[in-house]
Amino acid sequence: MSAAESREFFTVRTVSDALTGFSPARRSAVESVTLDEALGRVPAERLTARHALPGFARATVDGFAVRASDTYGASEGLPSYLDVAGEVRMGEPPEVAVRPGTAVAIATGAPLPAGADAVVKVEHTQTATTELLEVLRPATPGEGMVRADEDATPGAELARSGRPLRPQDLGMLAAAGLTEIAVNGRPRVTIVSTGDELVPPAAADLLTGRVRDATAPALAALVREAGGEPQFAGIVPDDRDALSSTLGAALRTSDLVVVSAGSSVGARDETAAAIASLGEPGIWCHGLALRPGKPTMLADCGGVPVIGLPGNPRSALVVFRLIGMPIVRQVGGCTHPPPESTVRARLERDLPSAAGRLDVVQVRVADGEAVPLFGSSSLLSILTAADGYVVVPEAATGLAAGSEVEVTLYR
Amino acid sequence: MSAAESREFFTVRTVSDALTGFSPARRSAVESVTLDEALGRVPAERLTARHALPGFARATVDGFAVRASDTYGASEGLPSYLDVAGEVRMGEPPEVAVRPGTAVAIATGAPLPAGADAVVKVEHTQTATTELLEVLRPATPGEGMVRADEDATPGAELARSGRPLRPQDLGMLAAAGLTEIAVNGRPRVTIVSTGDELVPPAAADLLTGRVRDATAPALAALVREAGGEPQFAGIVPDDRDALSSTLGAALRTSDLVVVSAGSSVGARDETAAAIASLGEPGIWCHGLALRPGKPTMLADCGGVPVIGLPGNPRSALVVFRLIGMPIVRQVGGCTHPPPESTVRARLERDLPSAAGRLDVVQVRVADGEAVPLFGSSSLLSILTAADGYVVVPEAATGLAAGSEVEVTLYR
Repeated sequence: MSAAESREFFTVRTVSDALTGFSPARRSAVESVTLDEALGRVPAERLTARHALPGFARATVDGFAVRASDTYGASEGLPSYLDVAGEVRMGEPPEVAVRPGTAVAIATGAPLPAGADAVVKVEHTQTATTELLEVLRPATPGEGMVRADEDATPGAELARSGRPLRPQDLGMLAAAGLTEIAVNGRPRVTIVSTGDELVPPAAADLLTGRVRDATAPALAALVREAGGEPQFAGIVPDDRDALSSTLGAALRTSDLVVVSAGSSVGARDETAAAIASLGEPGIWCHGLALRPGKPTMLADCGGVPVIGLPGNPRSALVVFRLIGMPIVRQVGGCTHPPPESTVRARLERDLPSAAGRLDVVQVRVADGEAVPLFGSSSLLSILTAADGYVVVPEAATGLAAGSEVEVTLYR
Repeated sequence: MSAAESREFFTVRTVSDALTGFSPARRSAVESVTLDEALGRVPAERLTARHALPGFARATVDGFAVRASDTYGASEGLPSYLDVAGEVRMGEPPEVAVRPGTAVAIATGAPLPAGADAVVKVEHTQTATTELLEVLRPATPGEGMVRADEDATPGAELARSGRPLRPQDLGMLAAAGLTEIAVNGRPRVTIVSTGDELVPPAAADLLTGRVRDATAPALAALVREAGGEPQFAGIVPDDRDALSSTLGAALRTSDLVVVSAGSSVGARDETAAAIASLGEPGIWCHGLALRPGKPTMLADCGGVPVIGLPGNPRSALVVFRLIGMPIVRQVGGCTHPPPESTVRARLERDLPSAAGRLDVVQVRVADGEAVPLFGSSSLLSILTAADGYVVVPEAATGLAAGSEVEVTLYR
């Protein structure tokens, strides 16, 4: 092993250690958003009901508000007879009460008049005259209605803290009149690309030896999926001073910095040295027990997480999905991320691995079978051809053909 | 059954019929977006490689470019000796070729020099002098490298047509230099709220009988999740002329119109009449064999889909997730939606249903058990408390406690 390699892989940690143990202090700043901007945002405070919801007892069927006790024993053969005392208008406070022996016409959603404790469905009634109602079945108290606080009691939590707001959560906040929501800001994630071989994606013609920067746009998308806001620092040459200067500037305007390193050992060495110079407590690990993705650096630079990714695009994207997205969520206060999409499938062939190392293997899924896709970590086509991936856990020495595996699906 | 109800439920269809049979012609207009805006967008044309990728044969390890035949039979005891003829610089065309008996130093990602057909890892070599290399293991042709067209051959499809672009797809497009992408526009979905009881979410104090419009903001979020762009037409009184006029205006500026109907029979009648007046071929169904969600209208108004949702917020959101989101995707050209998040669980109690009707039941999931949440369709709290939902299919008459069910998780 060369000096460069021994330095680079000096502290190798497991993925599970990284997920639990690497936690720089930085959190994104709190901001206020409107309901219309709040989908997927993470509430920064307890969101509670200021008053009961719906706020008044409401009919849930079209029919007649009654006192349930007035209908006891009613049947088709022997109906209860009630005087129709009026009707409740939709969206208006009731102008009439239900006294013993009376009923009030009411539509779904309208407020229950005073005195009523049930609503009889119109299908269970007959109107002998417009003023006389026959109730054909007994009503039980609470039937055909919801209570004034049945959707929320005053002070009830309206959306789970730390979880991105879902469509129905926005509905509940709207019902409660919360239209300006304090949320954790989207973590500002600066992506620094390095590598003397890289040119911007828009470059039309390529000199032999040059490749377009494919990793940065894909990383930006993963940042967005994790709730962050990506910003690009551009392509920096494989030079320690240039890198240090770019990284230093990025640190001052970011909640998280990601370096997509050059692919050669030399480029990785320059990146490691530049990251090491950034600040205390500094480098947390020089490598991960992960394939692909071993040459991953994690550092805490004055509270800001810095992730040094491997140079190969596929490795970089595997690492960022596994380690980077959880860090983005952590910085953004997201403690309950949305559930992954997974499917169980039979493994089509053996997946060898080494104990103590976590392997990520892209697969195609068809007819309940997961077919592994192999090839160089430099190939993006393996990721684009895949439906998802299988993880060979750290404790396992591989997975046997025919065994049932859980495939995490790319969305 | 009243006249209003018999009219409303005149044509009742199954959910599966609606998903396969209701397909108005409207498609959103094609537009061009940059790579940075393309996450989740649906390509409107075949996206193909204009040239081979990576474009040149590349080393995938740090080591020495060789002719494999020069290393046959090499071992630690009897190495192959090769003259080091120079090195390849990162990002530059090689200035030196590999002739028989020679090797060229090369870093991961650098272009292979002419004459070489393999790269020997530095770990499998020793350098006797700076000019003499000992190769300790035989290399096979193609080892330690990728071919010039191994990531994509010219003309290869780079991302699956009809599927929203994923992070890795953006990486592949960037690698190929495609930075302006023709995508299907986000379907413009106008949301019309009706109901004399409704007030805007920002209303601070509520008169008894009034409720805030919770459905519209939640629907807007579902529209966004399906790739559409919601626009609000506001709250319209339960009045046929006002509704017809608002719907007519919405039709002219929308790819899809959704009416969140008032909850009373009267309001639903007004909505049905207004939708019926909008244009040919008109109403496709007056109801769905679905619970909750029966009073759902689907109409095709000059090619634009119009969805009349039930008045209860929970019913409206169930219907829109099941029927509305697929229609938004159809209008937006999305034929391969992202996979749902699902989990298998044991049903905690019986779920009764009726054959021929599809039931959607919200559940909480804990310890592998799915616990159904019951209550009025007017309650949003059932949706906000739920982790997901179970579907009782049309053919089943219910699901038994203890049976294994698939829960679709809310994200």
